[in-house]
Amino acid sequence: MTSPKSLSRSPSSTVSANIVSSILTIQTPGRGFVDLTAEIAKFVKDAGAREGAVTLFIRHTSASLTIQENADPSVLADLTTALDKLAPENAGWTHDTEGPDDMPAHVKTMLTAASLQIPVLDGELALGTWQAIYLIEHRTRPHRREIVLQFAGAT
Amino acid sequence: MTSPKSLSRSPSSTVSANIVSSILTIQTPGRGFVDLTAEIAKFVKDAGAREGAVTLFIRHTSASLTIQENADPSVLADLTTALDKLAPENAGWTHDTEGPDDMPAHVKTMLTAASLQIPVLDGELALGTWQAIYLIEHRTRPHRREIVLQFAGAT
Amino acid sequence: MTSPKSLSRSPSSTVSANIVSSILTIQTPGRGFVDLTAEIAKFVKDAGAREGAVTLFIRHTSASLTIQENADPSVLADLTTALDKLAPENAGWTHDTEGPDDMPAHVKTMLTAASLQIPVLDGELALGTWQAIYLIEHRTRPHRREIVLQFAGAT
Repeated sequence: MTSPKSLSRSPSSTVSANIVSSILTIQTPGRGFVDLTAEIAKFVKDAGAREGAVTLFIRHTSASLTIQENADPSVLADLTTALDKLAPENAGWTHDTEGPDDMPAHVKTMLTAASLQIPVLDGELALGTWQAIYLIEHRTRPHRREIVLQFAGAT
Repeated sequence: MTSPKSLSRSPSSTVSANIVSSILTIQTPGRGFVDLTAEIAKFVKDAGAREGAVTLFIRHTSASLTIQENADPSVLADLTTALDKLAPENAGWTHDTEGPDDMPAHVKTMLTAASLQIPVLDGELALGTWQAIYLIEHRTRPHRREIVLQFAGAT
Repeated sequence: MTSPKSLSRSPSSTVSANIVSSILTIQTPGRGFVDLTAEIAKFVKDAGAREGAVTLFIRHTSASLTIQENADPSVLADLTTALDKLAPENAGWTHDTEGPDDMPAHVKTMLTAASLQIPVLDGELALGTWQAIYLIEHRTRPHRREIVLQFAGAT
């Protein structure tokens, strides 16, 4: 552990808060990453969001959320490989009634995120240059997935 | 990576926000999953929550939170097995003064969640059909655990 | 799975909400844990926060956030070892143009947290006795990292 070597902080601003909620429905093409960034940005714009945070919550236990690199598709391929190594099929799972890809999907969901929060500043998602918001479909076949979107903040 | 194949969004609604906080104390029976869903639903009802989100924050580093399947108990057994494989005891950890289950408990906590957010819509937790909210006790013996509950939204 | 054995809840309080945002910039010394707790506590104090929650969001995909033990530095050393075992260098990653430490850094980020929420009660971060808030730098060399801080609640 180390202390921060160099650390600066921008001035704070204060505004009052509203809540805007929506449900996003996605038909996934099966296992892999689905980029949600443009759709979340559209929600922020439609909500008239100025300052606050968007919460994403996925209503499933065999698909999950993550924020990852948006540039090189090989990163996403390697992330899939990594998850497969951490939660392989045919590893002696006792829960196998829904197919060999189901229990690994639950493990991968537990290791990634069911809920995410992304701040909104000046009406824009405060993502870094290389960040995108992904749904990760862990099941082999296509599924219909629901994500609750909620903005809390100044509109 | 793929783009969403089919994606729909329900209309948004806007409401103003309040904060309601509470601390939940749980005596765990030792290692395993404790279902908190009914208690969180009770908090939402008692708070008069209508639209917003509940934040859960666990005040410990050897127990954590997750959202997982509520139906087949074999899923929880396999999740425990998965965590044990990812963070086994007796793996040469240097931190061993608190027993062989302590350092694996820290690793498992890091790989799962210390904080969770669950939206509330129409006065109900917006969980999916198969989702439950669990505390995961990573230590072998029973422990007293505290979780901060906080609703932010319209009451 | 078990039901809570013993469970108590403190009374709730209700207050209205404001938003206070800030960006924290940190120059990391390279791979390892950076303790942010004092700086986040300062943000909470400067914001005049009384009751609500602080959201942390890291704007990078090769560094992440976690809440972990603040006492014994050997815990942090073992957590680093655990992450290295889960996402080793030279494991046949296809994404290797940014160096052997880059793809493992993305995997480690996915397995830990990009966003965290910590409740504020009575003007103080509601951390447990043994909890600290860490940035984890996953890259070998020093990097400049940005974290969005946002308090939502009563000021």
